[in-house]
Amino acid sequence: MTQAAVLYETVADSISGMISAGTLRPGERVPSVRRLSTQRKVSVATVLRAYEVLENQGLIEARPNAGYYVRHRIPFADEPSISSPPVAPRLVGIGALVQEVLDSRRPDVVSFGAACPGPDHMPTARLQRTISSIARRKPLSLTQYVLPPGNEDLRRQIARKSLDFGCNLAAKDIIVTHGCMEALNLCVRAVARPGDTIALESPTYFGLLQILESLQIKALEIPTHPREGISLEALEFALDRSKIAAVIAMPNAQNPLGFTMSDENKKRLVKMLDKRGVPLIEDDVYGDLYYGDQRPLPAKAFDRTGNVMLCCSFTKTVAPGFRLGWVAPGRWLAQVQMAKFINSVGNPELLQLVLADFLASGGYDRQLRNLRRVFRHQVSHVSTAVTNYFPAGTRITRPAGGFILWVELPEGCDSEELFRQALRNKISLGPGTLFSATDRYRNCIRMGCAEPWSPRVEQAIAKLGELIKKQL
Amino acid sequence: MTQAAVLYETVADSISGMISAGTLRPGERVPSVRRLSTQRKVSVATVLRAYEVLENQGLIEARPNAGYYVRHRIPFADEPSISSPPVAPRLVGIGALVQEVLDSRRPDVVSFGAACPGPDHMPTARLQRTISSIARRKPLSLTQYVLPPGNEDLRRQIARKSLDFGCNLAAKDIIVTHGCMEALNLCVRAVARPGDTIALESPTYFGLLQILESLQIKALEIPTHPREGISLEALEFALDRSKIAAVIAMPNAQNPLGFTMSDENKKRLVKMLDKRGVPLIEDDVYGDLYYGDQRPLPAKAFDRTGNVMLCCSFTKTVAPGFRLGWVAPGRWLAQVQMAKFINSVGNPELLQLVLADFLASGGYDRQLRNLRRVFRHQVSHVSTAVTNYFPAGTRITRPAGGFILWVELPEGCDSEELFRQALRNKISLGPGTLFSATDRYRNCIRMGCAEPWSPRVEQAIAKLGELIKKQL
Repeated sequence: MTQAAVLYETVADSISGMISAGTLRPGERVPSVRRLSTQRKVSVATVLRAYEVLENQGLIEARPNAGYYVRHRIPFADEPSISSPPVAPRLVGIGALVQEVLDSRRPDVVSFGAACPGPDHMPTARLQRTISSIARRKPLSLTQYVLPPGNEDLRRQIARKSLDFGCNLAAKDIIVTHGCMEALNLCVRAVARPGDTIALESPTYFGLLQILESLQIKALEIPTHPREGISLEALEFALDRSKIAAVIAMPNAQNPLGFTMSDENKKRLVKMLDKRGVPLIEDDVYGDLYYGDQRPLPAKAFDRTGNVMLCCSFTKTVAPGFRLGWVAPGRWLAQVQMAKFINSVGNPELLQLVLADFLASGGYDRQLRNLRRVFRHQVSHVSTAVTNYFPAGTRITRPAGGFILWVELPEGCDSEELFRQALRNKISLGPGTLFSATDRYRNCIRMGCAEPWSPRVEQAIAKLGELIKKQL
Repeated sequence: MTQAAVLYETVADSISGMISAGTLRPGERVPSVRRLSTQRKVSVATVLRAYEVLENQGLIEARPNAGYYVRHRIPFADEPSISSPPVAPRLVGIGALVQEVLDSRRPDVVSFGAACPGPDHMPTARLQRTISSIARRKPLSLTQYVLPPGNEDLRRQIARKSLDFGCNLAAKDIIVTHGCMEALNLCVRAVARPGDTIALESPTYFGLLQILESLQIKALEIPTHPREGISLEALEFALDRSKIAAVIAMPNAQNPLGFTMSDENKKRLVKMLDKRGVPLIEDDVYGDLYYGDQRPLPAKAFDRTGNVMLCCSFTKTVAPGFRLGWVAPGRWLAQVQMAKFINSVGNPELLQLVLADFLASGGYDRQLRNLRRVFRHQVSHVSTAVTNYFPAGTRITRPAGGFILWVELPEGCDSEELFRQALRNKISLGPGTLFSATDRYRNCIRMGCAEPWSPRVEQAIAKLGELIKKQL
């Protein structure tokens, strides 16, 4: 990608940020091409290219001889309200339904059920070249074990990136894992024992619930606001009332609600847990896919005592097929490193070297800029279509990042029934019951928006709307 | 490798098998070149090449004008006797020492501590070519998740191989894992709960003990004969006396004792457990590295009810850096498949495709023939050196495969102390205390013989001998 390309993207991103923040409102004129060119010290051609991109995204429109204007858009359906899970911890039991959803991932199915980014926007050619080159230059990467903590080049690159989000990690603080899922497993195994209770957001990613289920750990679900995140008041109440071994949270672009907590609340969360010696396992897998102006900080950035265990991955952003993630487990470094050995010994070194090369070259930043625009775009299209095709009373979230929407259907809708009806029509979705150990969220669905927007996707949403209306 | 090369190896293997079985004894004349050439219907040149190989291995010697004779060899030190672990199950606690041994794996250290095969005998060039080719032809393997059970090409190849060892597996019976270690983790998680008891051989691979430790499962160690394997009488007694959730065993080339159970005993083991509904988790990671004439059957070959969960890997034989293993979990297929998703979602597809290609091409059989000869050779050299340099009263095992020796030092020797003294001399080894949850085997050490035989290796054994003698 050329320097000019980077510039026009920066310009487009900043205007689009102003629109989503409400600084520029529907119907208002955006700055003239000439004025913006002078202001930003970029060429007229760069601004024109940026406006063309925004126009393609449906954010602005050109009016003949009058310049560019912010488009009037149909307002999205209302947001859901804060969750109210039951107050007792309980054992999880959602495995069979998860398997059904996983099995629904087929090429002929329009997949709102998965949270896997598609291959379309991944840096395939670059990865292909680097793989061949490293396989040739570093043959030992094929024929030797790399024991935990993992390849040092990769850990050094991750440490360098961590400066961008306020965590001054060193390579020695980091352990490479098989994706974020293994990282989370290792953290849970390091700090909790069977029979313990772990608190988490409600609704939350079903994989987290399954990890607890498989280790016989109880889940205590905490009320969570779809825009502000886990209720710190409720969490504090729970901490003072019962013995909690750890808290798992996704402060950035939470799965499935999409919120990003404010820095203020992240700081409060870290302090609250640190004071009580309760570790925070932070899942930041969507942290790099923010829609705003800058990378939101993970809670780990406010950690002064090693009490936060930060889990991340490159599976949503660069190379889903590599299954490479990492964890910075704070003061549980030794325990997590041993747990990694016990769980899977190590990771393929070839893939670690390829990723390290990609990060070192600056390719990752360009890749993220592109992905963020694409996902924001796709989420916006799906939000509009859901608003149009789903029945009145439907509520949808306003994600701050990632590619996931949480949709609350009118009372009485049954998302498990809908899942099966939809699958017969070659459409998959995530039934809300997956996202809690209780029977909450039966009238909710999770919709992954990773598939490129197309008439096929729109038709699938229209069909879902029909099926839902029949349930009422 | 040419057809001729395969032929002379077959001839050499068969003569060497006759020597190790005692059919040809030291001092006896081996068949004349002409006679063997007629018998086996191969050329004289092929037989000559085979005898040259056997001569290089120190198995036979040419006497001028008199043909070839089996060499007189110094007999190895005695074998250890059957183990007698305590009869109560207990929680494991060996983590810190394991970390010390893992940390001792450095290029400047002569490594008897590790059980990782070195890169020297791996098919590096072939893997390099295939990686580049597949990365180019199948770009989706880089940018898409493969969910459990894993890539179908690879599973089909594994199923095809399973015919060679009496298991008629289909692709659908197999789940791809991150090495054998993850496979074992998944099986344990599928059939046992925290607080349960699992029975295993004593001594046994420390990784198995650590899996149990991390899941709060108790280990019940069963007396085990260094040549015949787990005592079926003791196991039956334990099964009738206490509640046992599962048995983990390595019937082929056990780590660390090296024995291979007889087919008769494997059959009895399978039947005994099947009758009681207690699953057998079979670790067959060294099964392909047999020294005898043919691939020993896994216990799974005698399983008629799906009660045996077979765990295997390619990390010891083709590509240690790929971390690819597999499990055929019998009637726990659904549970293990879900456990795999929970534990690490999936495996990198690129590496699965490369391995599938290697298996499909027949490269694996050639690779195994070569490795078996190399490891047998190295184990034999280390056995001789241990016999020569270690004090009287030392006992060593007679492995039937793999590359691991178990050495019982005279009473009073302390293997943990020896480990630390040796490390100061840049030599690593496996202290015996690692191989039990009790404090058994303090006077034993495990020696991995994966490093190519060289004066450096011999000097290290001489040095170990010195250190041991000082302890007496």
